[in-house]
Amino acid sequence: MSSTTTYDVTAWPDGDPFDDIGAVINSIIADVKQRQAASTTDDGGKPGAVITIPPGDYRLRTQVVIDLSFLRIEGAGHGFTSSSIRFNVPQEEWPELHELWPGGSRIIVDLPERDLREEADGAAFRIARSGSPRISSVELSGFCIDGLHFTGEGPAGNPENSYVNGKTGIYVADANDSFRITGMGFVYLENAITVYHADALSIHDNFIAECGSCIELRGWGQASKITDNLVGAGFTGRSIYAEHHGGLLITANNVFPRGASSIHLHGVTRSSVTNNRLHSFYPGMVILAANSSENLVGSNHFLRDQEPWTPFLDADNGLDDRYGLLTISGDDNSVIGNHFSEIVEAHRIRPEGATPVIIKVLEGNGNYIAANHIVAKDVTVGSSDSCFAAQVDALLATDGDLPLEVTTVSVEPSAARTTILDSGTEAQVQADRTVNAVRALPPLPAASPDVSGSKVVRT
Amino acid sequence: MSSTTTYDVTAWPDGDPFDDIGAVINSIIADVKQRQAASTTDDGGKPGAVITIPPGDYRLRTQVVIDLSFLRIEGAGHGFTSSSIRFNVPQEEWPELHELWPGGSRIIVDLPERDLREEADGAAFRIARSGSPRISSVELSGFCIDGLHFTGEGPAGNPENSYVNGKTGIYVADANDSFRITGMGFVYLENAITVYHADALSIHDNFIAECGSCIELRGWGQASKITDNLVGAGFTGRSIYAEHHGGLLITANNVFPRGASSIHLHGVTRSSVTNNRLHSFYPGMVILAANSSENLVGSNHFLRDQEPWTPFLDADNGLDDRYGLLTISGDDNSVIGNHFSEIVEAHRIRPEGATPVIIKVLEGNGNYIAANHIVAKDVTVGSSDSCFAAQVDALLATDGDLPLEVTTVSVEPSAARTTILDSGTEAQVQADRTVNAVRALPPLPAASPDVSGSKVVRT
Amino acid sequence: MSSTTTYDVTAWPDGDPFDDIGAVINSIIADVKQRQAASTTDDGGKPGAVITIPPGDYRLRTQVVIDLSFLRIEGAGHGFTSSSIRFNVPQEEWPELHELWPGGSRIIVDLPERDLREEADGAAFRIARSGSPRISSVELSGFCIDGLHFTGEGPAGNPENSYVNGKTGIYVADANDSFRITGMGFVYLENAITVYHADALSIHDNFIAECGSCIELRGWGQASKITDNLVGAGFTGRSIYAEHHGGLLITANNVFPRGASSIHLHGVTRSSVTNNRLHSFYPGMVILAANSSENLVGSNHFLRDQEPWTPFLDADNGLDDRYGLLTISGDDNSVIGNHFSEIVEAHRIRPEGATPVIIKVLEGNGNYIAANHIVAKDVTVGSSDSCFAAQVDALLATDGDLPLEVTTVSVEPSAARTTILDSGTEAQVQADRTVNAVRALPPLPAASPDVSGSKVVRT
Repeated sequence: MSSTTTYDVTAWPDGDPFDDIGAVINSIIADVKQRQAASTTDDGGKPGAVITIPPGDYRLRTQVVIDLSFLRIEGAGHGFTSSSIRFNVPQEEWPELHELWPGGSRIIVDLPERDLREEADGAAFRIARSGSPRISSVELSGFCIDGLHFTGEGPAGNPENSYVNGKTGIYVADANDSFRITGMGFVYLENAITVYHADALSIHDNFIAECGSCIELRGWGQASKITDNLVGAGFTGRSIYAEHHGGLLITANNVFPRGASSIHLHGVTRSSVTNNRLHSFYPGMVILAANSSENLVGSNHFLRDQEPWTPFLDADNGLDDRYGLLTISGDDNSVIGNHFSEIVEAHRIRPEGATPVIIKVLEGNGNYIAANHIVAKDVTVGSSDSCFAAQVDALLATDGDLPLEVTTVSVEPSAARTTILDSGTEAQVQADRTVNAVRALPPLPAASPDVSGSKVVRT
Repeated sequence: MSSTTTYDVTAWPDGDPFDDIGAVINSIIADVKQRQAASTTDDGGKPGAVITIPPGDYRLRTQVVIDLSFLRIEGAGHGFTSSSIRFNVPQEEWPELHELWPGGSRIIVDLPERDLREEADGAAFRIARSGSPRISSVELSGFCIDGLHFTGEGPAGNPENSYVNGKTGIYVADANDSFRITGMGFVYLENAITVYHADALSIHDNFIAECGSCIELRGWGQASKITDNLVGAGFTGRSIYAEHHGGLLITANNVFPRGASSIHLHGVTRSSVTNNRLHSFYPGMVILAANSSENLVGSNHFLRDQEPWTPFLDADNGLDDRYGLLTISGDDNSVIGNHFSEIVEAHRIRPEGATPVIIKVLEGNGNYIAANHIVAKDVTVGSSDSCFAAQVDALLATDGDLPLEVTTVSVEPSAARTTILDSGTEAQVQADRTVNAVRALPPLPAASPDVSGSKVVRT
Repeated sequence: MSSTTTYDVTAWPDGDPFDDIGAVINSIIADVKQRQAASTTDDGGKPGAVITIPPGDYRLRTQVVIDLSFLRIEGAGHGFTSSSIRFNVPQEEWPELHELWPGGSRIIVDLPERDLREEADGAAFRIARSGSPRISSVELSGFCIDGLHFTGEGPAGNPENSYVNGKTGIYVADANDSFRITGMGFVYLENAITVYHADALSIHDNFIAECGSCIELRGWGQASKITDNLVGAGFTGRSIYAEHHGGLLITANNVFPRGASSIHLHGVTRSSVTNNRLHSFYPGMVILAANSSENLVGSNHFLRDQEPWTPFLDADNGLDDRYGLLTISGDDNSVIGNHFSEIVEAHRIRPEGATPVIIKVLEGNGNYIAANHIVAKDVTVGSSDSCFAAQVDALLATDGDLPLEVTTVSVEPSAARTTILDSGTEAQVQADRTVNAVRALPPLPAASPDVSGSKVVRT
């Protein structure tokens, strides 16, 4: 070790990182604090440290508690592999599998049962410090946090499909500044990342999948970014959630199923949801709730289709098709230049016979909805025991489809002064014309023929 | 050290990196050059090196001069914490603070006073090489450059609020190719990054705040990207500036106050400003100046509100509210699908009684402005001694507001052939209809009621 | 070495990495597999490893074969420099050059001639594993793969301008999950990255230039992202190509010439091409082929101008100007909020006297084209022996230009039910109004004067 601020968990003399990496990291943190206290000078003295985690399986029996700024914990592998697929493979086939578990610099969350009852106690990493200044520049990078098993009641009678185990990956309890979470992997945690009171947080380029909920920014906060992540929550949870945030930038994320929502904003203002690719098996993909106002939802691709994988065919988020793929409660939001695809079997629409809604303005004034393209098709979607093949087949299926009647924009009576431009035909836009302004799409000539293209196939 | 191309500043025998990391890095660079000269072969021979900086406080008394390609300098912590907040905390409270200074792999710029008079001399890192080929693939990553103090005349009578000290973080003097600046932190520098003559430069995922100016691409250049950064300059400076660049991509940045401008382009053509979140306390947020032409400004979120933090209440950038939040001098630009929020107290509008302008076309032909949503409100903004709380409260404040009359688009007499679509009502678009084409928003019905949502609060 | 899962190629006892890094890495992989087999436990046992490559020139005479999950290979320098420029500098000037070759952690692909006949054999890195689960979380980061020479027949009689040598950088043969390719450099390879059957792949923040083709996602796949890269293929190849993919996100890339196409999608559905900066010297920049459907092409900047660099003046991709800059074969795509600049010398349009097409809908139903701004100019472009200077001059040249007549949108007879809004004048939109819906731009008043701005110059 060339520097006293660089620590390797496998070289630390106190504790066994393979048996309890939590105890080892806490011991290192204590050492960092002791050295810093001894070295304070006029212009500095508390620069933090870096703790490295080489690839390996590290059990975590003790929660890591971080209460100092400028600490970087860094692994050399995000290590994701699908546990969900394997847990739905018959166990007699397991011996034929190349590997059974995630890998990389992998932390196996194995906290005592009693700690899993309280969310903050069930976190592998808890970051907490009160007083001033706010804890700053903690960086977590390049390792894997694996919750190992789900333990609730799950679809197909399989607890491993429940997304419930009381475990959290990273839990930030107190106001914080300039944190970075990058290049990480999260799998089989009930909550992957939960951050209260964030300022200028960056959650960038992570892989967060097969977790109950993935990213939750709670309390309040500002000026943060959630960018360029691959994210997909469980059917009961949220892929990306924020409350009472201002100036949040959510962009360049590829959010895949099966989250109950893809992006859920609660009392969020003056923020951007732009340029994401969003895919869900249920309505309620993007929710602007609790007077979320002056936000921009632009240049996103929304796809809502149906669960193709056998074990989860009966799971859903409880919302029916009148709820909207994008639902707004708030004022003065902008919904511009998005593409929406609603690709379902008509007989599975709920309530039966209902007309699905794509964009719903539930309440609020002055929302602006322009130049959105809504495509809706009635298709027969097959299901399969193989998650990957089924999803790709469903994604590519654009043939043999019939047009599906939808309400492209629905403005409820508790909303008004909405401007709706070029986002549906006269018939597709349900809005009281005495309190909203609507410019329907120019009608396609009645004679327009169907000249569908050639067939698309997977192989 | 397993390789002769990997250097650790704390293990280098020549010099003390804690006393002068600049001299140590220069000594390492000399070693790299000597070894390369001795090893040249047919197909190679000058691969460069990596210099690592473990977390720690490193004083820099000698400027680092980089004149070879393929050098990576890499730290293990971007180390930002707010110096601005602390310098506005009464000094008697300092002993209660957890830490006083930035951290991580932190370089404290402590150049001799005489070097701070010339910009190039006042840089911590100067990269300069003439001749051919252009210096290539220098990579700076993961460390902090801290200017320590501002020393000019600042708001609230505090020199530390002046953003002036003659110090620059990284200064690239000559034509360069394929440089990378990533994961860095910059704080309390008069200029954070200044690059002349860039080609295929990547400035990605950095934290650049509390600097006079943050990113300046000067001279001319092409095909570069400024992406996914958290950026915020001082009230006298520029957050992102470029001149005579073509094919520049500025995207996914979260630019916060208080820069005199958020993005300022001077003679820039065929470039993109898309998908950024921009927040300013003054007019003149995005400026396309000096015949900046054929650029796309799309899918951005603009918020202009007011300074809520007591020490800076009297600071501004000198522009009045007729200037525009987006101001264009140039031809054939596209302004499409942006959201603008102008949230101010009407009595603070300057000149008094003026109608604020949101998009101003100052001069030029053929600009295209479509599907932008402009929101304007007259609110009472409180101020506070706490920067974080004040900003969040201001960001979330959407209630108790009154509509504010604005000119959404103003086309000056020296501009013509502008196309303006769906970006304001007939009355809100000020443009000579004999030389411009305007399609106003369909008017909201006169009877539209106000059905404002519920209150948003921070806690 | 503090951990048995961390390997440094320069410290491995078996083989000489400078003579054949391929053999060394294969030997390390064999060691990783052996150790993993010996250590399997209940919850884990196959975490992978990290192999580091310090800066240096490493010849690769043996293909690396990766058939285990969770392997990270990591360098400390992407090392790009332009070989193309140097190979077009007279050899007598080479002694004056600072350096001749790329650098960083540089792998020189020097496979036996016989291996270069088959694409899979000619790859420096081949990743292949059948069976279950799919190989996961292989990460390649921070090094350079250099093909050294092109050997075909090239423009200006120079084989080095041919983009042909049978070499590939990274070739992934089998279905894979959660791979990461980040921070890499690729130069002088016939194919930089070829990946079959990708799921949740991330190709992020790389530098891929002077390669025949840059990124090809073949076979089929889903939910991947290609983000924030600097990319530019040869005149015969593709910068970004995907086939039969669903849910692909291509965003924040700066794609420069001279690829035959910038982005080519073949049978791709429900994917996003948003927020990229695209520059080409030929028509056929973005191609949605083979029933590519329900995709969003939004907020991109397209620039098509002309080759300014003398050695490549005679090269092109064989397409004439009626082909379109964006060409669509497929249903229900969205083209919203893009900027297009077509900047050419009128006398070089092919076939002579033709009207260039910007957006062409070749076949398919229900495409939606709204709020795109198309600029076209007839300029005189100079050429130069210096690539950088010539390109910057051409990019900045907006003066002395004449308007150029173009068809902004052309809908062919085999396409119908297209909606075209605000993307051209009545005369500029060529579409059968009996089967398509067109809303032309409001005409600019006849009297509109030309008030062109001031001159832009490079220095």
